[in-house]
Amino acid sequence: MLDFSFHNPTKIHFGTDQITQIAQEIPTDAKVLLIYGGGSIKKNGVYDQVVASLKAHQWLEFSGIEPNPSYDTLIKALPIIQDNNIDYLLAVGGGSVVDGVKFIAAAAHYEGDDAWNILAKQESVTSALPIGAVLTLPATGSESNGNSVVTRGDNKLAFSSALVKPQFAVLDPAFTLSLSERQVSNGVVDAFVHIMEQYLTYDVNAKVQDRFAEGLLQTLIEEGPKALASESKEDLEVRANIMWSATLALNGLIGAGVPQDWATHMIGHELTGLYGIDHARTLSIVLPGVMKVKQAQKRDKLLQYAKRVWQVSAATDDEIIAQGIAKTEEFFKAMGVPVRLSDVELDASDVDKIVDKLEQHGMKALGEHGDIDLATSKQILLTAL
Amino acid sequence: MLDFSFHNPTKIHFGTDQITQIAQEIPTDAKVLLIYGGGSIKKNGVYDQVVASLKAHQWLEFSGIEPNPSYDTLIKALPIIQDNNIDYLLAVGGGSVVDGVKFIAAAAHYEGDDAWNILAKQESVTSALPIGAVLTLPATGSESNGNSVVTRGDNKLAFSSALVKPQFAVLDPAFTLSLSERQVSNGVVDAFVHIMEQYLTYDVNAKVQDRFAEGLLQTLIEEGPKALASESKEDLEVRANIMWSATLALNGLIGAGVPQDWATHMIGHELTGLYGIDHARTLSIVLPGVMKVKQAQKRDKLLQYAKRVWQVSAATDDEIIAQGIAKTEEFFKAMGVPVRLSDVELDASDVDKIVDKLEQHGMKALGEHGDIDLATSKQILLTAL
Repeated sequence: MLDFSFHNPTKIHFGTDQITQIAQEIPTDAKVLLIYGGGSIKKNGVYDQVVASLKAHQWLEFSGIEPNPSYDTLIKALPIIQDNNIDYLLAVGGGSVVDGVKFIAAAAHYEGDDAWNILAKQESVTSALPIGAVLTLPATGSESNGNSVVTRGDNKLAFSSALVKPQFAVLDPAFTLSLSERQVSNGVVDAFVHIMEQYLTYDVNAKVQDRFAEGLLQTLIEEGPKALASESKEDLEVRANIMWSATLALNGLIGAGVPQDWATHMIGHELTGLYGIDHARTLSIVLPGVMKVKQAQKRDKLLQYAKRVWQVSAATDDEIIAQGIAKTEEFFKAMGVPVRLSDVELDASDVDKIVDKLEQHGMKALGEHGDIDLATSKQILLTAL
Repeated sequence: MLDFSFHNPTKIHFGTDQITQIAQEIPTDAKVLLIYGGGSIKKNGVYDQVVASLKAHQWLEFSGIEPNPSYDTLIKALPIIQDNNIDYLLAVGGGSVVDGVKFIAAAAHYEGDDAWNILAKQESVTSALPIGAVLTLPATGSESNGNSVVTRGDNKLAFSSALVKPQFAVLDPAFTLSLSERQVSNGVVDAFVHIMEQYLTYDVNAKVQDRFAEGLLQTLIEEGPKALASESKEDLEVRANIMWSATLALNGLIGAGVPQDWATHMIGHELTGLYGIDHARTLSIVLPGVMKVKQAQKRDKLLQYAKRVWQVSAATDDEIIAQGIAKTEEFFKAMGVPVRLSDVELDASDVDKIVDKLEQHGMKALGEHGDIDLATSKQILLTAL
């Protein structure tokens, strides 16, 4: 196990009617800005429940946060915050809303000339407004971590700060019942690949982290397809297991004390940037390629993954690994996401464009060993044709 | 999964030289009381490292906290705190020291007549001094939970408060190398039974919690005996896996959203109270009896446990369960702890005395169903002869 520091102070309220905890979690003298996305929370009743829980508070609202939240939208919240002495932000939505609120929280306390520098120049966040979150889409883990990704034009940039970790998060699996199949499948696949990025590297004898990662992967493999099947898609237990898995997939716990990869994400980001492909669907295309091309470096973990997560047994180690990769692809297909560039109508002529973008963004040493250079990324993409 | 709230704000610093983090974690203007036990930290060098990390702080020390920390000892820290305006407590030791420091932290801010009421009358803790912990014995999980057990004469009483959760905990596996075999085995068995109390109940389809519990159990089963074997007892990786398992065994995570039992602990406490048997060694005697006597109520989980933790396969479910229980006892024996009352020279004539104590302490409805009455506890103890 590698040395680590781990700190996750977000208070989780999980289950039915936990949304009423908002009333206690936010100080009653706080002036709250309720921030959400495109209005789906008004259709599914979550908005009304939030409003009911805020009846003792002074609050205003700000909506219109997009998937891949845009700087131009987020920055419009700042005069509202300033003019109304807002001192608490309540994010209601999926990972994009929570990510966007994190940027707003940091920008509201930013003392330099241009809050964009938090992203563009990676200036340290030294203060931020407190945040609470009501999660409606299990996927990114943003509800209990310090990560945020914000888009401005062609730039999709990330920052991370302990100061923007939500103070509390409400996770009610019932809120996920109104999601589309595409949102559900994207969320499950996103969480799955978050786990793989922290698991499928090299062995450091971190047994607890490995067992936890395998347990989360197995849960998503079992429950993900049930959340799409007509006979079980309304099953709250299925939704609960997915929701808790997605939070724990990226709250810092399974990644503490182990190497991490994140090459799949970095390559995937360029597919989203160039072609607008949903984030999770870029990951399901890229991950199998990473597993194949980096097989030698990831050999011990690929074997462990195939045996422990998929119960593969076969005559040779190579065969065990091949079956583990094949089962991963079958799982992604069962979740309705693409596993090849051809599934999203891209071909060999696109590969160089993607690699060019990686080069522009300085992504020349990806992976847990920093050995995924541009040529290796190209090989990964060609493997994914 | 049951509804739950989960909050664990303790910052964990794990690994080599993490003890230097103390300097940053405790405010430099704090007046610190360093609290420890019987002086083993002076022999193994931990004391010197703590002192080196406190060189920028004002600090005093208070020592002599016993295993099963006594009220009479703990209360002596209060005038030192008051006379010197101490405002931060640093616990250095095992679970007993950390438990004791939690009581001191609450008692120092107690405004009533008698701080013993925090335990005797279960008066709510409304304020406490902040606590940091340097752990030297992985076992109780006290370094990142709000639980404390304090002894006064014949009374061994517990309290729990979020306000006494340590703000940070330093976990350096090297600090555990100087423990005796008995301390190591007790620690592993204590952590193992903590997990079982939160796992071996009835199924609520909480897949993540079950997989995490199984992962921790498997890790302790693999690593525990290695920490006793001459060829591997100095292996820091083994110690690291045990240390992280013991913390996660009782930090609230695997117990969130699932039923809990704790009958083994309640019955075991009487064995410690009456006969002075080490806490962990009471658990290894009582747990197999609970597994056997409550087999019908715990059937689904006993099967899951035997199959997933021990990979048992057999012709019938009864046989699978029997093998799972037998393997648990074999593991305890391999860890050098007793599994029968006769192993600690008790016999049938002691059983009524133990049951009388349970009755005196109101322990008439134990277990996850509250159906372990005094007659059932007697049956469990007779099964453990």
